[in-house]
Amino acid sequence: MTDENTRHTEKMKKIKAARDRMMETKTEEKGLIVVHTGPGKGKSSSGFGMIMRCIAHEMPCAVVQFIKGNWMTGERQFLTERFADECKFIVSGEGFTWETQDRERDIKAAQAGWEQAKEVILDPTIQFVLLDEINIALRNDYLDIDEVVGFLQEHKPFMTHVVLTGRNAKEELIEAADLVTEMGNVKHPFRDGIKAQKGVEF
Amino acid sequence: MTDENTRHTEKMKKIKAARDRMMETKTEEKGLIVVHTGPGKGKSSSGFGMIMRCIAHEMPCAVVQFIKGNWMTGERQFLTERFADECKFIVSGEGFTWETQDRERDIKAAQAGWEQAKEVILDPTIQFVLLDEINIALRNDYLDIDEVVGFLQEHKPFMTHVVLTGRNAKEELIEAADLVTEMGNVKHPFRDGIKAQKGVEF
Repeated sequence: MTDENTRHTEKMKKIKAARDRMMETKTEEKGLIVVHTGPGKGKSSSGFGMIMRCIAHEMPCAVVQFIKGNWMTGERQFLTERFADECKFIVSGEGFTWETQDRERDIKAAQAGWEQAKEVILDPTIQFVLLDEINIALRNDYLDIDEVVGFLQEHKPFMTHVVLTGRNAKEELIEAADLVTEMGNVKHPFRDGIKAQKGVEF
Repeated sequence: MTDENTRHTEKMKKIKAARDRMMETKTEEKGLIVVHTGPGKGKSSSGFGMIMRCIAHEMPCAVVQFIKGNWMTGERQFLTERFADECKFIVSGEGFTWETQDRERDIKAAQAGWEQAKEVILDPTIQFVLLDEINIALRNDYLDIDEVVGFLQEHKPFMTHVVLTGRNAKEELIEAADLVTEMGNVKHPFRDGIKAQKGVEF
């Protein structure tokens, strides 16, 4: 063994001991309120990566898709065609707000989506719920932030995870959440004339 | 229609027109070098969300998992058991560096993983490659950053997407990438004694 390797082994032993001690204090489990926000990529795709994990672990799960309703994304096709039993997929809204151009219709769609979201969150057989792009509906005041946060705090079953995605998450939601990630945009190819591409963006 | 709704419709028409003009300039397609870095959650799970999109679009894809080798995560189980034909899954490395405590073995494992990564990137049938946690191997100098960046720039087929995840991405890689997202940690439940949980973290 080289000297460098010996030093590395010693250092890693210390890191492992410190980490083991730290992990021993992390013993609790609870259903989390998770928020993915920020202008960068990965808010929805990370939610769908977690849905993949749930299906693998046989944890029944659900997606309520706000805003992107009329768009047959890869994730929607994948889950509705192949995993309808494992993952309930609810579509609310008929597209981006600049596509529908009808605020009253958008509000109705968002509120109908929220009614269904409450049902799947309350469903005792469902352990993980992804509310995709709900932050857009909240930012546009299609849904009342106090109602959404109040419901999560008072009625979410203790072990159910709820993930809420979309940029511009409201402060009240961030306050109430257990786990919040801000996806920051360091570099984006749209700036160079590259369009949204299969596999990467949808 | 209420006044507010009329104003909304007019505003959305303008946004749509501006957006349509912008999107008309985004016509190019190319395989991207994508980096997910930063201390926050969602770097790997977003990569796996993109793998789900690829499978939906029938784009053959591959994962090379650095570092987390000995850990049967949900995503690994899901892909190896159900989608072995659609997604090639290669495991390199035997665990976190503080678990193996053997630098020479870690270097060998990372380099063996990189050799296999090059093969799948060069494979003309594969359109999307996820190099999960490769940034950790690069940060620890188990792999040479110039070799990795040079290979991607010179040999990656034009239409192949390559996604590289892990915190502390090196500056040379960020420089070479087309799309870089920094996952920022706003709030994390480990701080409150909550352990890593199924579905959410693995």
